[in-house]
Amino acid sequence: MSLSEQLQEHKETLILALEQEDRERLDQWLPELRAADLSEILEEMAEDDDDLPSVLKLLDCLPLERRANVLGYLPGEVQLEVAEAMSDEVLLSVLEEMGSDERADLFNLLGEDRQEVLLRRMARQEREDLKRLASYEEGTAGAIMTSDYVAIPSGMTVSQAMMRVRQTAPDAETVYQLYIIDPEGKLAGTLSLRQLMVARPGARVDDLMIKDVISVAVDEAQEEVARLVARYDMLAVPVTDADERLVGIVTHDDAMDVAEEEATEDFHKGMSIGQLEDGVSRVPLWSLYRKRVTWLVLLVFANLFSGAGIAYFEDTIAAQVALVFFLPLLIGSGGNAGAQAATLMVRGMATGDVGVKDWSKLLGRELLVAGSLGLTMALAVAPIGVMRGGEAVAMVVATSMVTIVLFGSLLGMCLPFVLNRIGWDPATASAPLVTTLIDASGVLIYFTIATSVLTGA
Amino acid sequence: MSLSEQLQEHKETLILALEQEDRERLDQWLPELRAADLSEILEEMAEDDDDLPSVLKLLDCLPLERRANVLGYLPGEVQLEVAEAMSDEVLLSVLEEMGSDERADLFNLLGEDRQEVLLRRMARQEREDLKRLASYEEGTAGAIMTSDYVAIPSGMTVSQAMMRVRQTAPDAETVYQLYIIDPEGKLAGTLSLRQLMVARPGARVDDLMIKDVISVAVDEAQEEVARLVARYDMLAVPVTDADERLVGIVTHDDAMDVAEEEATEDFHKGMSIGQLEDGVSRVPLWSLYRKRVTWLVLLVFANLFSGAGIAYFEDTIAAQVALVFFLPLLIGSGGNAGAQAATLMVRGMATGDVGVKDWSKLLGRELLVAGSLGLTMALAVAPIGVMRGGEAVAMVVATSMVTIVLFGSLLGMCLPFVLNRIGWDPATASAPLVTTLIDASGVLIYFTIATSVLTGA
Repeated sequence: MSLSEQLQEHKETLILALEQEDRERLDQWLPELRAADLSEILEEMAEDDDDLPSVLKLLDCLPLERRANVLGYLPGEVQLEVAEAMSDEVLLSVLEEMGSDERADLFNLLGEDRQEVLLRRMARQEREDLKRLASYEEGTAGAIMTSDYVAIPSGMTVSQAMMRVRQTAPDAETVYQLYIIDPEGKLAGTLSLRQLMVARPGARVDDLMIKDVISVAVDEAQEEVARLVARYDMLAVPVTDADERLVGIVTHDDAMDVAEEEATEDFHKGMSIGQLEDGVSRVPLWSLYRKRVTWLVLLVFANLFSGAGIAYFEDTIAAQVALVFFLPLLIGSGGNAGAQAATLMVRGMATGDVGVKDWSKLLGRELLVAGSLGLTMALAVAPIGVMRGGEAVAMVVATSMVTIVLFGSLLGMCLPFVLNRIGWDPATASAPLVTTLIDASGVLIYFTIATSVLTGA
Repeated sequence: MSLSEQLQEHKETLILALEQEDRERLDQWLPELRAADLSEILEEMAEDDDDLPSVLKLLDCLPLERRANVLGYLPGEVQLEVAEAMSDEVLLSVLEEMGSDERADLFNLLGEDRQEVLLRRMARQEREDLKRLASYEEGTAGAIMTSDYVAIPSGMTVSQAMMRVRQTAPDAETVYQLYIIDPEGKLAGTLSLRQLMVARPGARVDDLMIKDVISVAVDEAQEEVARLVARYDMLAVPVTDADERLVGIVTHDDAMDVAEEEATEDFHKGMSIGQLEDGVSRVPLWSLYRKRVTWLVLLVFANLFSGAGIAYFEDTIAAQVALVFFLPLLIGSGGNAGAQAATLMVRGMATGDVGVKDWSKLLGRELLVAGSLGLTMALAVAPIGVMRGGEAVAMVVATSMVTIVLFGSLLGMCLPFVLNRIGWDPATASAPLVTTLIDASGVLIYFTIATSVLTGA
């Protein structure tokens, strides 16, 4: 049974229990569900079934800590709806139980009036922390970090640090990586709990800690944070402000979410789709339309160049209509080869496998590979050329194929580097853009060759 | 300064020190480099500069444990070259220091004779462990798991377990998640080190552990393992055999590597590129050619359908050559819209956001969005139709645009589901395939409408 079928069954059980007001059954079933699973069920109830009352009732059945945990997994708009149905009292307690990063995210969704009311009822330190975390720009390290880390004052002994870990354990996001803070609040070093556990109780953390810490600035792009965590196999990466003070950490699971999000964004960009705020099955239709239409319309006009090219060669075409037979094939092949080359580069640059300095080396490689691809495809298409229009047409088609595939591949390979150079995201070199550019060039190449060969010019 | 520039500098320093045989400088510089960075430098030396002797010399300067660690980061073929240059003695010590998963990977690369020699010199338990880990099929949980986990026999007290953690700490991949094993060797439950630390020393682990463990079978696909780790924010997922015995764990960092690998594979598939064994800048040219050529040639033949469609309507075209002007634009737009729709579905299915049961709901959404997109693009292109061929042509072009975009989008949306249904990878519904199919259909739609309107049939 697949996970989704299992979840479907759980959902039906929960709904039945709700309808029958069978509290006993709910209390038996709810604890069996993991937060990630329960939140998926609630999300479907809220969005597909539009059944917010059931969501609220189910959340009410959960103990406070679990309620906060499940809520944190839900998409923003559902969190907001749930929060709006809660009294200030309840919302405050739930916020308190949430991880500091999720608390800040939910807080940012609330209306200003509600924010004011809640802030006024919080303790001073809590308020400052929340205001700070909520203030970082989306997409930066600051926006995804949590302030629930274990800070160890410099100078502590191992046994003192161990005590501190035990005290902080219930609230910290991770207790496995400890951060040693000097008297000025600066990050002096890190120490893993593993190192702490095998150390002599009387030793000082300052003598054990690793001083050469990998950290990120609070305004660092979130994809860069994810890349660091992956590269150095980190449990969490510390985030520091301009004065090198530790302000938070980004944990491995949040980094993994960012990496997935970024990969999805690049996927969509690769097909000229703008950044969606949510999964494709949930994002509003109007937003889906907007994210897709811009490039589509731009590409319509770019395609006019192909049309103009065809119009320019109208005489050649009228003289030998058979040439049109090979037009989709030739420009299609160039577009496909070019889109392949562009994709290889864009993804290579995104994963850090390809750097700008590799450009010239890759150009040589692409020349060889694209040349071989063009020759292979020319051989495949030549017999058809002979069949449809004789040897002259076959020669025109084969020559055009090699030229177009070579040109398309080189264009597809170079475009991401050029875009990167002028400060654009290389992923803008999407398959549709590359294909459209090659279409227009392909028309020119094909008919130029055809005109010169067939009219003997 | 970017990371890669920093690394370049480090590399030059190391090479200079090597040339001058400045051992003191090497001993000062090498410990400053992290394993991930040093291995990147060595990789470039081995592959781009073809300078294996320097790689070997540098590795020789490292203490054994570090040498094993750095070696594990290198690509397979470099590891193999390094291993072949080592004596059996040295290689054995290095293998011993490696993580069990990396040890098995390197072992699998060695020739059979060398494997035999090494196995004969190992202790029995070590030999069995290595043979077992090396035997799992690539792409499964077994192939990426490590056997260096902390197993706690069922029945132990908290303080006994704590002692066990301290003993195992130097060798275990992670000590933060503990696995409780019953007398039959079955996985009875898990316990986090955090829970253990705050528990009463006399309590029994059996009373504290979580019994409802998320685990994977040893032959589970690696992408499924990565998905579970991400979904449940796990530090590591336990791997069990057919008898529910714990045989290994997959840690979060290895899961993150798999997720990145899978995303890259899907990216490439989306552009009809086969699975590469290595990054695009390193994979052999011949392999790059092979991975790209198959689909390109297949698509050449698929494109023949477009050509055949055009040939069929030769009379219409000859009568009104102006129609050809709009051909690239119309089929291009349909292809772009279709590729967008396919990409949204393929990625949604890969991330688990879209399930097969969502099909009908998504169909309705796509109908609305694609209809609006088609209308917008028809409006954009209609004035050009009027300019180039009068109102009748404009009407033909606008009608064709709506029809082709709608048809293309629905085809692009449905194809991944159909492929999934017949047991293929939805990512096979690549942009080039979708575009080619829509090209052919677009030709038919366009000229059918044109023939019927312009000849008044």
